Amino acid sequence: MSLASSPLSYADEGQWQPHQLPQLKTELKRIGITIPAEKLADLSKHPMSAIVSLGGCSASFVSDSGLMVTNHHCAYGAVQRNSTAEKNYISDGFLAKTHAEELPAGPDSRMYITDKVENVTAQVLSGITPAMSGKQRHEHVEKQIKTLIADCEQDKAYRCSVPSFHRGLEYYRIRQMMIRDVRLVYAPSDKIGNYGGEVDNFEWPRHTGDFSFLRAYVGKDGRPADPSVNNVPYHSKDFLVVSAQGLKNGDAILLAGYPGTTSRYKLPAEIRFARDVSYPARISDYQSDLSVIAAATSGNANAEVRYASVVKSINNRLKKTEGLLAGFARKDIAAIKDAQDTEFRQWYAQHRSDTSLLKELDAVIASDMALTEEEFAWSVATNSDLLKSARTLYRLALESSKPDAERKAGFQQRDVSFITARLNRLEQSFLPNVDQARYTASLQRYNQIDARLRPHGLDLLLPTPESVVALYRQSELGNTARRLAWLNKDANSFQQSGDPFIQLAVKLHDTGMSLEDRRMEVDGNLERVIPQYMQAVIAWKQAQGKPVYPDANSTLRVTYGTVSPYSPRDGVSKGPFTTVEGIVEKHTGEAPFIAPDNLLAAIREKRYGAFKDAALGTVPVDFLSSADTTGGNSGSAVLNKNGELVGLNFDSTYESITKDWYFDSAITRAIHVDIRYMLWVMKEVDHADNLLKEMQIRYPAK
Amino acid sequence: MSLASSPLSYADEGQWQPHQLPQLKTELKRIGITIPAEKLADLSKHPMSAIVSLGGCSASFVSDSGLMVTNHHCAYGAVQRNSTAEKNYISDGFLAKTHAEELPAGPDSRMYITDKVENVTAQVLSGITPAMSGKQRHEHVEKQIKTLIADCEQDKAYRCSVPSFHRGLEYYRIRQMMIRDVRLVYAPSDKIGNYGGEVDNFEWPRHTGDFSFLRAYVGKDGRPADPSVNNVPYHSKDFLVVSAQGLKNGDAILLAGYPGTTSRYKLPAEIRFARDVSYPARISDYQSDLSVIAAATSGNANAEVRYASVVKSINNRLKKTEGLLAGFARKDIAAIKDAQDTEFRQWYAQHRSDTSLLKELDAVIASDMALTEEEFAWSVATNSDLLKSARTLYRLALESSKPDAERKAGFQQRDVSFITARLNRLEQSFLPNVDQARYTASLQRYNQIDARLRPHGLDLLLPTPESVVALYRQSELGNTARRLAWLNKDANSFQQSGDPFIQLAVKLHDTGMSLEDRRMEVDGNLERVIPQYMQAVIAWKQAQGKPVYPDANSTLRVTYGTVSPYSPRDGVSKGPFTTVEGIVEKHTGEAPFIAPDNLLAAIREKRYGAFKDAALGTVPVDFLSSADTTGGNSGSAVLNKNGELVGLNFDSTYESITKDWYFDSAITRAIHVDIRYMLWVMKEVDHADNLLKEMQIRYPAK
Repeated sequence: MSLASSPLSYADEGQWQPHQLPQLKTELKRIGITIPAEKLADLSKHPMSAIVSLGGCSASFVSDSGLMVTNHHCAYGAVQRNSTAEKNYISDGFLAKTHAEELPAGPDSRMYITDKVENVTAQVLSGITPAMSGKQRHEHVEKQIKTLIADCEQDKAYRCSVPSFHRGLEYYRIRQMMIRDVRLVYAPSDKIGNYGGEVDNFEWPRHTGDFSFLRAYVGKDGRPADPSVNNVPYHSKDFLVVSAQGLKNGDAILLAGYPGTTSRYKLPAEIRFARDVSYPARISDYQSDLSVIAAATSGNANAEVRYASVVKSINNRLKKTEGLLAGFARKDIAAIKDAQDTEFRQWYAQHRSDTSLLKELDAVIASDMALTEEEFAWSVATNSDLLKSARTLYRLALESSKPDAERKAGFQQRDVSFITARLNRLEQSFLPNVDQARYTASLQRYNQIDARLRPHGLDLLLPTPESVVALYRQSELGNTARRLAWLNKDANSFQQSGDPFIQLAVKLHDTGMSLEDRRMEVDGNLERVIPQYMQAVIAWKQAQGKPVYPDANSTLRVTYGTVSPYSPRDGVSKGPFTTVEGIVEKHTGEAPFIAPDNLLAAIREKRYGAFKDAALGTVPVDFLSSADTTGGNSGSAVLNKNGELVGLNFDSTYESITKDWYFDSAITRAIHVDIRYMLWVMKEVDHADNLLKEMQIRYPAK
Repeated sequence: MSLASSPLSYADEGQWQPHQLPQLKTELKRIGITIPAEKLADLSKHPMSAIVSLGGCSASFVSDSGLMVTNHHCAYGAVQRNSTAEKNYISDGFLAKTHAEELPAGPDSRMYITDKVENVTAQVLSGITPAMSGKQRHEHVEKQIKTLIADCEQDKAYRCSVPSFHRGLEYYRIRQMMIRDVRLVYAPSDKIGNYGGEVDNFEWPRHTGDFSFLRAYVGKDGRPADPSVNNVPYHSKDFLVVSAQGLKNGDAILLAGYPGTTSRYKLPAEIRFARDVSYPARISDYQSDLSVIAAATSGNANAEVRYASVVKSINNRLKKTEGLLAGFARKDIAAIKDAQDTEFRQWYAQHRSDTSLLKELDAVIASDMALTEEEFAWSVATNSDLLKSARTLYRLALESSKPDAERKAGFQQRDVSFITARLNRLEQSFLPNVDQARYTASLQRYNQIDARLRPHGLDLLLPTPESVVALYRQSELGNTARRLAWLNKDANSFQQSGDPFIQLAVKLHDTGMSLEDRRMEVDGNLERVIPQYMQAVIAWKQAQGKPVYPDANSTLRVTYGTVSPYSPRDGVSKGPFTTVEGIVEKHTGEAPFIAPDNLLAAIREKRYGAFKDAALGTVPVDFLSSADTTGGNSGSAVLNKNGELVGLNFDSTYESITKDWYFDSAITRAIHVDIRYMLWVMKEVDHADNLLKEMQIRYPAK
């Protein structure tokens, strides 16, 4: 038996489009799921119509009055925004006892309910001719998509998108009702919601109570409306029943949410490129950038706070990229993919008369990797917040001179408010001297990159590292009001400007556009060749009786698995459950291991109530399952075999990081908060009785 | 239910004297042991007559020709002694293919077979009168013991001892046949025998093949003889059958060997003293001493090698003492003992009319702790190898002027060869400049000790730290020949000597003797009071239907348990088995994780042969059991329910370190090498076919 067709690596793998689930009927039944697959496929029916997106996070309705449960880290921004020195909801937690006490989650907060998914592949691809260049093809597809979106967004209640599936083989138009008035209902203290903090990030054993509650509000007419005191709770016809009956090792679960991005169908060459070239370069770049920020902010509390989220974000990417390399070192995924690829190519040669597709495929992939190296050099050469702002502003000015439908995606009228918000928000994470230090160091790093991998002609356009100091001294873009003022200027004003960053943006524009054109050419070719390849892969898998799921693309997906421990190394087993006693075990009284006193007291006094697990003899906190998840699945509902809410997904183990490339069922585990812990905290610690009453909870039989 | 009477803490606890085993009949049967308890109680019968001591380590016969199996670390000295730059048996391993190729284990190597155990309590205690002071009582007991030993050692084939049990409640005379010609038969490479080295010491998961083979030789008359080419292999009438049939999780095991010391019956006050005073002081002292040695040997390869074993030994004590403190921090053993003590005292008050014993007990324990503090200060004040040598020599000269029976134990004629060997061996781990640095630092540390805790008058007798340099310059004791020459001098020569360390030894003698006298007074009182206390504790336990085992004292004991994993922290489970694949997982190619190429090849090629475990699908390496062990149990035979050899004990987990004080059955685990790994290495890696043939091995049914 080859590695490629191992039945073990099949189990639990897959982020399925709901409409695919009937193909998995037998498998779902086998692991013990009792909800009919056909029901799960219907977005208008329970339980799928209770699953929503927060844009980047997943959530689900748990009452008929728009009450949603998601992760604490997904609602963190709302908690932070409402906190002051006097009312520190971050450390003390927040609980609205009435609707009137619920707080605005923030002006950018959105909640999306997927209500319509249409296969629009034919429309997207209509009008494509064989004579089109890659760029022409790509632009044509982009234009078709923009039209489809514009048609769909006629009704302002909706936000629409046309993502591609199977790397361009299919396109679906997804219509989501977009609720614009989202309010914070309940968040436990971050001593519960973020217990373990960065130290425990990606780790197991985990003891994080990563849950929070939000509520969707709409106008009195029941339609989405701008935030207003006159709005009323959204009437969520469907919602999840919460089960406190618990799970045990081996039990089947379903998980529904909005996974972000995976790369499961990449070729061996692409994995080797990531492993040997792209990831090491990024890691080195992250590390350098972090040390420059550390040096530039050191000893300055204000500067440290200003860059805290930037540092956290780079650190998170660094840990993830390091985890990917560690995973590649532990298991030779490229070799596994080689075996699969060889098997596929043999099958293809047997079943197709013309194999020129495979040669073309390899050539297109090679051109993609070569261009990626130049794009990386470009990103290093332009790693300045002020330069990025200037480039965005100049591009917007240029695009704004065209009719809306012809503008580049991301610079259309529908995008202006997002751009404005981003340019405005910069001041929260920017200081001129720190940005100057980062850009100086970036230019030094750029000068170290192999000259053959730098975009042609770019060297001559860039400032020297030594001259950067003058740019920052002379630019006005560091000032928020002046930066925003450029939103209203035309391209000519930019070209005439004396501001050094505006000048640099204008000067670099052609090089940037040339890279963008080449990217469109490569992408257009990828979009032409890869779908043919994916079609063949699907046929090959189908010949083996295996359905094929598309890579994650932030659309609604369902995955399934079982509650299960794993072995990170010989002689050690981890999970599947942690317990409240483990919170006490980790509690040191120093962040991030400070458990609240009332929580510790409840554990000490063994006030487990109805949430005690019979087998564990105590209240479970988090658990592991073999479900297939990725970033974006944060807050996803974990359902038991009957479709009742039993947990919330919030992370995965360090050993699982490579799952974005290859799902290794032996070690890939998602981390969920057990709903019994959430309910127990609500009852014994935070006394959120109003919410416990609002939800429909199934308790275990006495 | 109180902590004290928890049935959980009863299971698997106990290092039983073989004659006690019939009391445990039901328990042994319950866990699945099929050998009758009466048979295990008989030292002259199989399997107990196959269990031997190496003095500090345990071993067992595995053929009728004196072939013994023990740990690699127990035979390490023998391997080292026979190694040269050309024939490096440490790294390459050693295998004698014939008896003629077997190598002398070393002049000090001894092997002991316990053949007679007599209860001599009445003889030891006869003649004691209530009027005796503590010192008088202690000296009287010592004299009785010396007479009992001298009687027993009339036959030079035997070494005898009269250890106390239950802290002085009982005394047994133990007669052991002492074999003086021990030879090295087989040791794998230390890349197998010490795989993981110091890094993995006390750790799990473990992948160490800690086994070696020795052979006992005797004169042609079958009696112990000095090493000689004319000697012949000892005819071991009894030996263990080796079972390759394997164990699985939950299986019962027996373990027989010579555990060194435990402190299970100490009072809460004694635990608090160790935890709060004695251990922290020792840890700080070890750390300071280690850093002084590091600084004094740094950059000098010769000095580093010379002190390597000293550093290893201090590090081992440091890790163990730190582990004890960590264990005390994790679990409040003093509080558990408080609960037990309270329960006991309540029972005692109900069953005894006079409770003055308990008051007296507390007073004696308090005097013991106070004296211990002064003894610690004394040990710091005399921490010089040259001073220690001088003190030993002077004491020997003083004792030698008395009739042998009246000399202090340890300075009798029977001890002279050991003293000489020790004085001789010093040169292997001594350099004047390093010892000088250590002593200077020790005196500085002594000066930091609270003046009330220093022995009275000692300050005035000690050299200043600054004057130490002159002592080393002027002393001749660093020279081995001159040091040994002092063995033949009388006390007067010492008193007249101009050697500064001899002078210091003479000057400190009275203070040392005064501490020794006070120690005898305290010990005599302990020996009078504690047995009465232990008698009451035994009566109390018996009232609960529980037999009581005595603390370990390097005598033959049997313990039992089951193969079982444990949870070091919430959400993690460790063991019970590791596998050969874990060796590959740890292999980095850098010490201590360099697995031999032929071992790696055998694993890669899955040449598991008859040693593949059905459940694991591969060859097991090490396993965990709940058996009750301590230092001295190294090399102890692990037997299956039928009394067949299935493993060798060699370590315990870090979480188990506090077991010397309190046996916590939830986390205490001993680490054993699985005999299947040993046999597999012998067959597939080292081709020790001659030994595999010599042993009687039961293979699994096909």
